[in-house]
Parts: sequence; structure tokens; C-alpha cells
Amino acid sequence: MPAGHHEAAWRLPESDPYAHVDIDYFVRLAQLAERGKLDSIFFADAPALFGDPGRRPSGTLEPTVVLTAVAVQTSRIGLIATASTSYNEPYNLARRFASVDWVSNGRAGWNIVTTAGDDAARNFGLDAAPEHHRRYAKAAEFVEVSTKLWDSWQDDSIVADKELGIHTDSSKVRPIGHDGEFFRVAGALNVPRSPQGYPVLVQAGSSEDGKNFAAQYAEAVFTAQQTLVDAREFYTDLKRRAAELGRDPDAIKILPGIVPIIGDTPEHARELEDRLEQLISPEYAVGQLARVFGLPVADLDLDSELPDDLPGEDSIEGAKSRYTLIVNLARREHLTLRQLIARLGGGRGHRTFAGTAVEVADAIEEWFTGGAADGFNIMPAVLPSGLERFVTEVVPILQQRNLFRTEYTATTLRGHYGLDRPANRLAQVAVPA
Amino acid sequence: MPAGHHEAAWRLPESDPYAHVDIDYFVRLAQLAERGKLDSIFFADAPALFGDPGRRPSGTLEPTVVLTAVAVQTSRIGLIATASTSYNEPYNLARRFASVDWVSNGRAGWNIVTTAGDDAARNFGLDAAPEHHRRYAKAAEFVEVSTKLWDSWQDDSIVADKELGIHTDSSKVRPIGHDGEFFRVAGALNVPRSPQGYPVLVQAGSSEDGKNFAAQYAEAVFTAQQTLVDAREFYTDLKRRAAELGRDPDAIKILPGIVPIIGDTPEHARELEDRLEQLISPEYAVGQLARVFGLPVADLDLDSELPDDLPGEDSIEGAKSRYTLIVNLARREHLTLRQLIARLGGGRGHRTFAGTAVEVADAIEEWFTGGAADGFNIMPAVLPSGLERFVTEVVPILQQRNLFRTEYTATTLRGHYGLDRPANRLAQVAVPA
Repeated sequence: MPAGHHEAAWRLPESDPYAHVDIDYFVRLAQLAERGKLDSIFFADAPALFGDPGRRPSGTLEPTVVLTAVAVQTSRIGLIATASTSYNEPYNLARRFASVDWVSNGRAGWNIVTTAGDDAARNFGLDAAPEHHRRYAKAAEFVEVSTKLWDSWQDDSIVADKELGIHTDSSKVRPIGHDGEFFRVAGALNVPRSPQGYPVLVQAGSSEDGKNFAAQYAEAVFTAQQTLVDAREFYTDLKRRAAELGRDPDAIKILPGIVPIIGDTPEHARELEDRLEQLISPEYAVGQLARVFGLPVADLDLDSELPDDLPGEDSIEGAKSRYTLIVNLARREHLTLRQLIARLGGGRGHRTFAGTAVEVADAIEEWFTGGAADGFNIMPAVLPSGLERFVTEVVPILQQRNLFRTEYTATTLRGHYGLDRPANRLAQVAVPA
Repeated sequence: MPAGHHEAAWRLPESDPYAHVDIDYFVRLAQLAERGKLDSIFFADAPALFGDPGRRPSGTLEPTVVLTAVAVQTSRIGLIATASTSYNEPYNLARRFASVDWVSNGRAGWNIVTTAGDDAARNFGLDAAPEHHRRYAKAAEFVEVSTKLWDSWQDDSIVADKELGIHTDSSKVRPIGHDGEFFRVAGALNVPRSPQGYPVLVQAGSSEDGKNFAAQYAEAVFTAQQTLVDAREFYTDLKRRAAELGRDPDAIKILPGIVPIIGDTPEHARELEDRLEQLISPEYAVGQLARVFGLPVADLDLDSELPDDLPGEDSIEGAKSRYTLIVNLARREHLTLRQLIARLGGGRGHRTFAGTAVEVADAIEEWFTGGAADGFNIMPAVLPSGLERFVTEVVPILQQRNLFRTEYTATTLRGHYGLDRPANRLAQVAVPA
């Protein structure tokens, strides 16, 4: 979200309306985040033009392209790009992420999404998105194929014997011969195993399918949580699911989103939040709620609460868990549609927190020490100023409290997250004589 | 070909065996080419691991990733990446090229290939590559979809009215509603129209299907030609085909490949060529001829000439025209298989020319003034030294002869080639009231 995570941020004077196609802007943001010693930058994405481009900057540069440009102009910060398992080919995508991992010397991450919504489906020969459970089944196989491809070269395969004319030990580069329900891929991959082995596998679905997928494959999980109780429950549940699958619960990092709106005083922060809320177009926001989250609100009066007879999450084929989060938020706080829109304007379901730098640090510490988070996905309402304030004001407080690093101690994203480099599974298979 | 276009170049002392995964190496090469005021750098590619990785550096970084990293560390040189129309989705690829065009401020080019060979097909759920003519039919539709997507945003669509809250004039962003034989794509693209409108469309097929495709779509054509007579015939024929389709023949640039091997004296150049030939593994090369070009030579004695009863080009589903070129070369010069392998080692069918800088410049001038070329694809046998010599020794001679620019006069690849920025076809369609 180049102008900031608040949907009206682009209307503020500081915002450059061409930022979404300006690579130098993205590079400056990444360099700023790197000055703050953050783990990574992260790009959401979908292969479709969502919503009405009239109402906010729409359509942006492809994330692996952006992150490659960032990679060669930074040295430490991780680089996480979103890519869809429903609308890509594993061979191409696995190679692209391996390439970004090479270019960045081991800083690539892949946010694995199945891509809800029919808009994307219609760009790929379909009339509608495949059913939710089927999308996740395909995603699982996609990840299996990808990890096989990343393992199709052993790390020590290049021998570079110029005298004998042997560049690579061919016995250490092996076809994968994958033949599954969704994909048939012969392999080997056409790029050697990359510095991290795999990119860090990131995931953000919080539905039942999403949590099972995360427990099995994810090494970092982005999640939208509104309350400490809910966040802690999600955290505990997901760690438990991972453990039940035989995984080390520490090998899956849980990172709730937080939309900080930082002011010099609490009142100042609230003023900025109010100002942003007033810049929202309610009619557009209603359309977005209906379109993106499947809420049947298109004809609802702005000053009414949500109807009691809403359909359950089971009937939603899109972003199931986000739908439930929004409905629960509106009911818990008895919000009118207009108020709900204001609450969602900043983070579309992620926790928005307006306050001073100390209050933001307190909020982060509370969730971190309260067993609700291993870290956070910082989603400034306004960019670049919100990130600038976070880096220069909140990070030092967290550092003073010994809650955050003062220098990078690793060079890879796996290193920043404290994740192991994955062993090569194919290398462990005995080679026929 | 990171180590150089000669297949044995990696065995020379100057070659870094990890160059194929070293982004800094590619950037340095591009910066060297930019110092020479060359139009562009160009990456061949295929979504498969070809041949035996034991025998030469195999598997390289994905070209759009490489070119993005180059884009932000250069300012003028064009950036041409190969991508397959058989094994990509148009929506994803059109967006990626538009993104590279944005990141480079208008320097992107797309070398459109249909990808011969079953190795690639087997990475995408197929047992074998689709038949040659079908691949080209799909490629044509792929390009049609892509240009529609690039035209789905008018150039002046962003209005950025913060006061009214209107970022983009929605009437200037339009679905494409493509419904064809191979693709159904709703659109619009999720990135605004890029600086060049489209990337420069490049093509390299020289079969009958390939030439027809080039005449219709290509703005630059790479071609392998061994003799001035053949090159001139190809040049004249392709310009005529383009004119018959109503195109300006100057809007399609024809660029034969040349593999220069530059020495201080003719003897020195010949020594380098001999040295490279001796580093070829004939057994491996025979396998490559059989595998890549479909030549039935796997069981042929190295010191025999090709048999008389070879199948015709019609029966080849791979690189048809290259097959014919190789067969004609062998017959014209009565080459044994061993000699043929040596001749192909440098450029796999492209013209190899060993000589002094003056002789290389003469060879280029002869073809250029002789109506055989609008420019050349320079394919140094050895990198980086071959490019270094070309830039520092051959380019100044061509400049003195007024055959080549002394400074860039444009900032885009279209500008370097003297190509117009394409009009937006969808913008010319009346919008329903």
C-alpha cells in the first residue's frame, strides 16, 4: 500500500500520487525500514485490479520486480513478496523466488496466497474463483512441488573443474518427477539451490483451511487480530497445530498486523486518525465491503448496524476469517455501518492503534509478552511519515526495553527470524548406483 | 550465456564458475555495454534445464529478475528478457514486463519465444511440446492479449485530485474482455500503462511460422545467419512481409547474431578460437546436436560427414530454421561432425568471426551497408573480456566510420531503436455514454 495502509492516505498532502509506480519510492521506504533494523518489508498482491481505481491508487508494480530492485540497494532487510498458488505455475514461480534469493544473498520470503475473489479468476480463463477448500488443496501441492524444485540441486553440486571440463556434479542435480492431482512437473529446476535453500514460507490465511495450511507449511504467519484475547487464542492454537504435526512451535513465527497512527500526544494521534476517517468515501467503502469481504451491505443505510441474519463464514468463498472478524467487531462494539467503515479504513481488519510512540510501544509489548505475538507486521496508516516515526520514535523505545535488536546479527531473512536453513530432502534420498 | 557464447568459455582462467548466479557479474556486464553505448542487453532463456549441467554452467537467474537489478544500476541501456508464450499466463507476464518498463523508465523489451523442446513441456504438465504451428498460433494470441492489457489504461488516466478524492479517471481504465481460442482474460491490467506503452517486442524465430509472426508483431528480430547472401535474403524477405501487412519496414529492425573473437592480430584471434575449440567435449556436443536441434547424429562417427538422407525441416517440431541452417552449413563446407561441432561451439548457428578489431568492424560494416542488417546482436565468445574488447576496440572504429552513435540520444529502448511509442488502441475506441 504505497501511500499507507489507510485507504484515504493518498489524499494527504505528503502523498505522491505516482508513488505506486515509482521504484525509487519503494527503495527509500525499504532503506528506511532497514535503518530501523526491521526484519523485512512485505508486499501484498493479487493478479487483478481490485475495486474502483478512481478512488485510490490502484495497480502497482509486480512484487518480485520491486523486491529485486530493493535487494540490490539494501544489504540486510528481508524481502517478502506475495504470489498466488491459484494463478501461477510452480516451475516459474519457484525459479523466480530462488532468483530473488540469489540476488538478495538470502533475504527472500514468499507470502503464499490462494487469492480469493472472482476478479482474479477471470484474468486466468475462469468464471469464478475455485472453491475455498480446493484452492488450499492446490496451494499445498504447489508448495510441495516448489520445495522439491528448490531441493533438486544439492548445495554442493557445482564442482567447477575446468581442467576436466566438469562444471557440475550431475548426480547432484535430479529430476523431481512430480505427478500429483494439480501439477505434473519433471524438473530439475533451472537455477541452483539458493542461499537460504528456500525463501521463507509466509502465509496469512486464518480460516480453518488457512490455519491447517499454516501449521503444516508456514514459517511466518501474518494475521489480523483485534483483541489480545483473540490474538492469544490464535497464537496458542496455531502453535499447537504445528506441534501436533511434529513441528517445533518456535519454527512458526506469528506476526499480527498493527496499524500505528503516531502522534506527539494522544490527542494529536486521534486528530490524525479523525482526519483520515473524514477523507474516506463511505459509498466507495460500502462497495468494497460488499465486494472484497462478501458482506451483504450494498443496500444498507450507513447509520444502521449490521443485520442480525448475516450468513455464516461457511458460505463465504473469499476471505473467510476476515469476514468473521469484521462481523464480530461490528457486533461487539455495536458499530453502525459508517462507524465500521471508519474502523476498517486504516487496516481493513488489522488492529489500528492511535497514540504516542510510548503508547504504541506499550501496545506492542503487551501483545508480545502476553503470548499473542512473536513479532508484528507494522502497517503504517500513512507512508512514508508513519514509517519514519515508527523507526525513529518507537524502535528506540523497544530497543531500550530489550524487546528489539539494536543491530542486525544475521544477513538472511531466516537469520533475522531465527529460522533454520532447510535441509535438502532430495539429497537425503539414496542415489541408485 | 554468462561465461560467453562459446560453450567451452567457462573453462578459461578468466571465467568465474559462479557467474551464472552472481547478480553483480551481470550488472558489471551491463554497465560495460552501456559504456559502449550499445542499444540493449539481451537474455536468452527457457523454463527448463537444458542439456547436461555437468558440462557447462546451467540454470541461471530468471531474466526479468536480472534485468530489474540491472535497471536500477544503469540509466540508458535497454533490457531485453526472453519469456515463453507456451508456459506463461498473459496477465502475469504482461504485468511483469510493464513493471520492468516502469522500473527502468522505458527500457524494457520482450523476446517472444514459443519454447521448443519437450524438456520444458514436462515442467508444465505436458508430455511433449505442442506442435510448432500451434505454438505460434498461441503466441500470436498471447501477444494480442498482452497489448490489450498494456492498453487497458490510458496514458492520462491518473488525475490525482486529492480534494475530490478521485485518484484515477475510471473511464480511462477498461476491461479488455478477451475471449479467444487459447486465453480468456477479463482485465484491466493491474499496473498503469508504462513509459514505453509496451516493451519493445522482439522475436527470433526464422521458420516460416516464425517469419510470419515476426512480420506481424516484431519490432526487432534476432536471427542466425552464416553468409551475407542468406542474411540479405532473410532481411529483404522479412521487410517485404512486414510491408505486405501494411507495416513500415523501418519499424522492424533486423539484428543478425555475430560471435566476435577478437585478437591483436588475425593469428592471435585464430589461436583463441582454436583454444576454445579444443576445450569442447565432442561427445557432449553430439548429444546437444541431437537433443536441441533434432539432428540424428547420436550414433554417427565424429569424423564422418552428415548422412545424405536427413529428414527435412517439415518433420522438425523444434527449432526448424536452425536445423536447416546447421544442415546447410555442414553440406556447403563438407564438414565432418567433429568440424561441425567446432563451428557451432561459438554460437550454435550464429556467425562466428575471429579477427582483429578492424576486421570485426569490417565484417559488421559489410553486412550493414550490404542490406543484411539494421544492427547486430553481439555475442562475445568469452565474457567479460570479449565484450570489453568489443566496447573498447570495435565500437570506436564503428564510431569513426559514422556507423554507430557516440552518445545516447534517447532514454528508452524504443528511442535507441528509432521506434515509435505505440498508440493506445483501446483509447481510440469510443466509450459508451
